[in-house]
Amino acid sequence: MKTKNQSKEIIKLAHGGGGRLSQQLIEQVFLPVFGNEMLNRMDDSAVFNVLHSRLAFTTDSFVVHPIFFPGGDIGKLAICGTVNDLAVAGARPMYISVGFIIEEGCFLDDLKRIVASAKEAADEAGVMIVTGDTKVVEKGHGDQVFINTSGIGVFEHERIVSGSNAKEGDCIVVNGPLGRHGMAVITTREGLGFQTRIDSDVAPLNHLIDVMFSSTDQIHAVRDATRGGLATVLNEIAGQSGVSIEIDEAKIPVTDDVKGACEILGFDPLYVANEGIVVACVGADAADNMVQSMKKEKYGARSSVIGRITGSSDGEVLLRTEIGSHRILDQLSGEQLPRIC
Amino acid sequence: MKTKNQSKEIIKLAHGGGGRLSQQLIEQVFLPVFGNEMLNRMDDSAVFNVLHSRLAFTTDSFVVHPIFFPGGDIGKLAICGTVNDLAVAGARPMYISVGFIIEEGCFLDDLKRIVASAKEAADEAGVMIVTGDTKVVEKGHGDQVFINTSGIGVFEHERIVSGSNAKEGDCIVVNGPLGRHGMAVITTREGLGFQTRIDSDVAPLNHLIDVMFSSTDQIHAVRDATRGGLATVLNEIAGQSGVSIEIDEAKIPVTDDVKGACEILGFDPLYVANEGIVVACVGADAADNMVQSMKKEKYGARSSVIGRITGSSDGEVLLRTEIGSHRILDQLSGEQLPRIC
Repeated sequence: MKTKNQSKEIIKLAHGGGGRLSQQLIEQVFLPVFGNEMLNRMDDSAVFNVLHSRLAFTTDSFVVHPIFFPGGDIGKLAICGTVNDLAVAGARPMYISVGFIIEEGCFLDDLKRIVASAKEAADEAGVMIVTGDTKVVEKGHGDQVFINTSGIGVFEHERIVSGSNAKEGDCIVVNGPLGRHGMAVITTREGLGFQTRIDSDVAPLNHLIDVMFSSTDQIHAVRDATRGGLATVLNEIAGQSGVSIEIDEAKIPVTDDVKGACEILGFDPLYVANEGIVVACVGADAADNMVQSMKKEKYGARSSVIGRITGSSDGEVLLRTEIGSHRILDQLSGEQLPRIC
Repeated sequence: MKTKNQSKEIIKLAHGGGGRLSQQLIEQVFLPVFGNEMLNRMDDSAVFNVLHSRLAFTTDSFVVHPIFFPGGDIGKLAICGTVNDLAVAGARPMYISVGFIIEEGCFLDDLKRIVASAKEAADEAGVMIVTGDTKVVEKGHGDQVFINTSGIGVFEHERIVSGSNAKEGDCIVVNGPLGRHGMAVITTREGLGFQTRIDSDVAPLNHLIDVMFSSTDQIHAVRDATRGGLATVLNEIAGQSGVSIEIDEAKIPVTDDVKGACEILGFDPLYVANEGIVVACVGADAADNMVQSMKKEKYGARSSVIGRITGSSDGEVLLRTEIGSHRILDQLSGEQLPRIC
């Protein structure tokens, strides 16, 4: 408790960006104190047994700015984010809590829209909002609406899925084009008048993930590619599993509108946040069959294999470019886009 | 989705205060949309069965200002608040999530103190922090640190405790002096130089509540008296159970320092927030025995019976004053103290 001799080190915006600084904060501040077997796994959900039930438990706070963006809003985002975290843990999302921190002066109608949109997403996902909380802070001490959602899921099978189980030879599968959420938010925030409106991909992925798990028992790792995008989540899987990953630029789906906006604004779509993208490491024999099943689903029409796990390493992720060269996809130190979720 | 014809109604600070405006917000905005059997009960925790286990699930966001106050800080508060919500539901608190929303520029050392204090409270309560999240917002769009904690508890017995089960004839029991938390925060915030420092009562009450449940099976309602104080929680119990409550001013424990500060600042200690006070409605035959058991506990030394449930009504709470007259303890419309938790 150094109050007299306090260091002047401060929290920077990049500490919240999901990149290297975020990880440092977790590793240097949170884990040494809070650390326990469950937390140390650093998966998106904690998994534990309560009496005779195996449960997943996850939490996320949402501070996206602006709170409304093409394709969604902070309410839909908050539900989908937590639903997806539970689903990628291999659990069936069931119960959700919603905590609002509202800035004084926020329009009641905006709040109502957000609530309606959260409810719609919860209904689509088939989860129940069972408990909640509301706090209000003075004008200038918040930013319209922040939402925390926590969620409980149950395991209906014996599979254990974790970021640390990816295996050499696995195929890397994604369900659709990358970078939509981040670019939807940033182009709206900056008021950029692109001809085509980019809609966020925010969606509840639990039904799609159900289909994936039903199609094979060879899924070794599943993650949603949110803050920091595909490159960040692949780095996390590679690090946790001790493997090297190679993805093939020619096979990575990115739509032209996102590609164009990224080029103009200087972003790399591989690092841009998604809110409807699932990444799976799946045994090579099972991958094609799983992709075919995914393609029949609402959020899986553009599913494809984009790369593979090439061997063991301390966590290297390589991009094979369209001209055949290789580039290391490193972890971001900060973030490209603050307040994207 | 009235975007073109949006009403100008806005959220006020008092909508977050735990009083009548908070309740209106919940009843007019959240319940009509999110409403379901569990949420509509409006208890602090949702209770449901997962496979063969009965669980309690609760969430709270903490925006207390200042983040450090005599007797505690936002970290300790966030853990105790969620532990207590689970415990008053009759569940054993087990797993906690912690989500931080940090304002850019917050001192890293402050964050470390908060984390250490949260851990200490979790250890005392015997709960495990199993999952977490960190977001950072720009300077001026937050206020140092906001914390959300959600928690899961398990039921180890078949009792059903709810705010709606209080019965005529029950004694009202509290475990100690009222108003400490609110006055600790407000005197610190305003920099008031009272001679005696008032320490917050913030504490994990789960062990005390264990003792209460072990001493009798006649506990019909248990609540912690947080935002809005004892008067508000008694109004909630009276309303939910359809009973009238009478408490006896002469028997209500308030320490001299709190009494003095309240008099100077114009507060009523019955409406001031506590973070270590449990209120129980317990069968008259069992009350004395339960109070004796409570008095042996760390947070129960000053436990006493302060009133009783006098009959059925639409939720009237009366205070019998020290001179023998009666005063209605109504629900607050706003709040006495913003950002107290």
